Amino acid sequence: MPQPIEFFFDFSSPYGYIASRLIDDLAARHGREVVWRPILLGAIFKLTGSAPLTTIPMKGEYSKRDFARTARYHGIAFKMPDPFPFSGVQANRAYYWLDSTDPKAARGLAHALYDAAFSGKDIASPQAVIEIAGGLGINRAAVTAGIASPEAKERTRAESDAAAARNIFGSPYFVVDGEPFWGSDRLDQIEKWLETGGW
Amino acid sequence: MPQPIEFFFDFSSPYGYIASRLIDDLAARHGREVVWRPILLGAIFKLTGSAPLTTIPMKGEYSKRDFARTARYHGIAFKMPDPFPFSGVQANRAYYWLDSTDPKAARGLAHALYDAAFSGKDIASPQAVIEIAGGLGINRAAVTAGIASPEAKERTRAESDAAAARNIFGSPYFVVDGEPFWGSDRLDQIEKWLETGGW
Repeated sequence: MPQPIEFFFDFSSPYGYIASRLIDDLAARHGREVVWRPILLGAIFKLTGSAPLTTIPMKGEYSKRDFARTARYHGIAFKMPDPFPFSGVQANRAYYWLDSTDPKAARGLAHALYDAAFSGKDIASPQAVIEIAGGLGINRAAVTAGIASPEAKERTRAESDAAAARNIFGSPYFVVDGEPFWGSDRLDQIEKWLETGGW
Repeated sequence: MPQPIEFFFDFSSPYGYIASRLIDDLAARHGREVVWRPILLGAIFKLTGSAPLTTIPMKGEYSKRDFARTARYHGIAFKMPDPFPFSGVQANRAYYWLDSTDPKAARGLAHALYDAAFSGKDIASPQAVIEIAGGLGINRAAVTAGIASPEAKERTRAESDAAAARNIFGSPYFVVDGEPFWGSDRLDQIEKWLETGGW
């Protein structure tokens, strides 16, 4: 049984969103599953001296143009979130709460959250996350309690820490049979890696 | 007559080298010329708070793996320069000296310099640059004087300043009919842009 592809991302990451719309189909073409792992890059950026792209002189303007152009290149709807960056912590907690009992539903929630964030909707507040989950038929009272649970908070923190310990410093970041790939622009290499087993 | 593609790069840039092996053929497939513009990123990195990728915690190790893997992906020979990064100032001066009288020969010299740098040879010293130029049949005494000329020094500085003034902050960086593209991983978008006129 081939290993699943690990897909690490921050909900506030534009290139992570673009990858989220492509990675499941790519993996399925090669008979692979994808394990989705939302992380919080803020703490990791402190370690690498990095910052949200849009805040960097010169790179900021370019990156905003490139996000939108790259989304259109792939035929993906895209609207820049405002404010940006935003906190994905509530979304991560909801994801990991649901993942602990129903990974497939958690995947569906992650897609819905990402699509909402990059179509101009708030996903930073607990209320917004609860509404989006409710729209998918997930019990609102259960998700409200789930987001606030110590287990969800601890798992959210532990997943980011574990990623940082593995030197996962960006979003999207993939691990395919032990090989790391950073960026939505490495999906073509991932596809070839899955086809050929590496080169 | 379609405009040429502008190709900005630093001789010390691994992704710039990879692009240098691909961009002429890509442009030729679409009836375009390429104007090569070596720049010095050191000064620009100060403006953007950036640094050579290999020196950044976590990103450094990844990037070295990605340079080599991406080169192999494209079937391009690649050896990491040591020391890295190195100064491209002498190479730039030789390039612009030759470009002022023979742009086609300057292109040939740029290819030879890049290929030398990424096959483990020094191109940081004037002597190394003169030897490589001499190997292409360029008069050694002329290139020796050319590198040291005030005109070559001034042009080298002016080209980096002009690039910085246009917010060109990385290598490789392309401008295609006014549209900016950063990175060797944007060559697929450049190809589609040339095919379709944009999207």
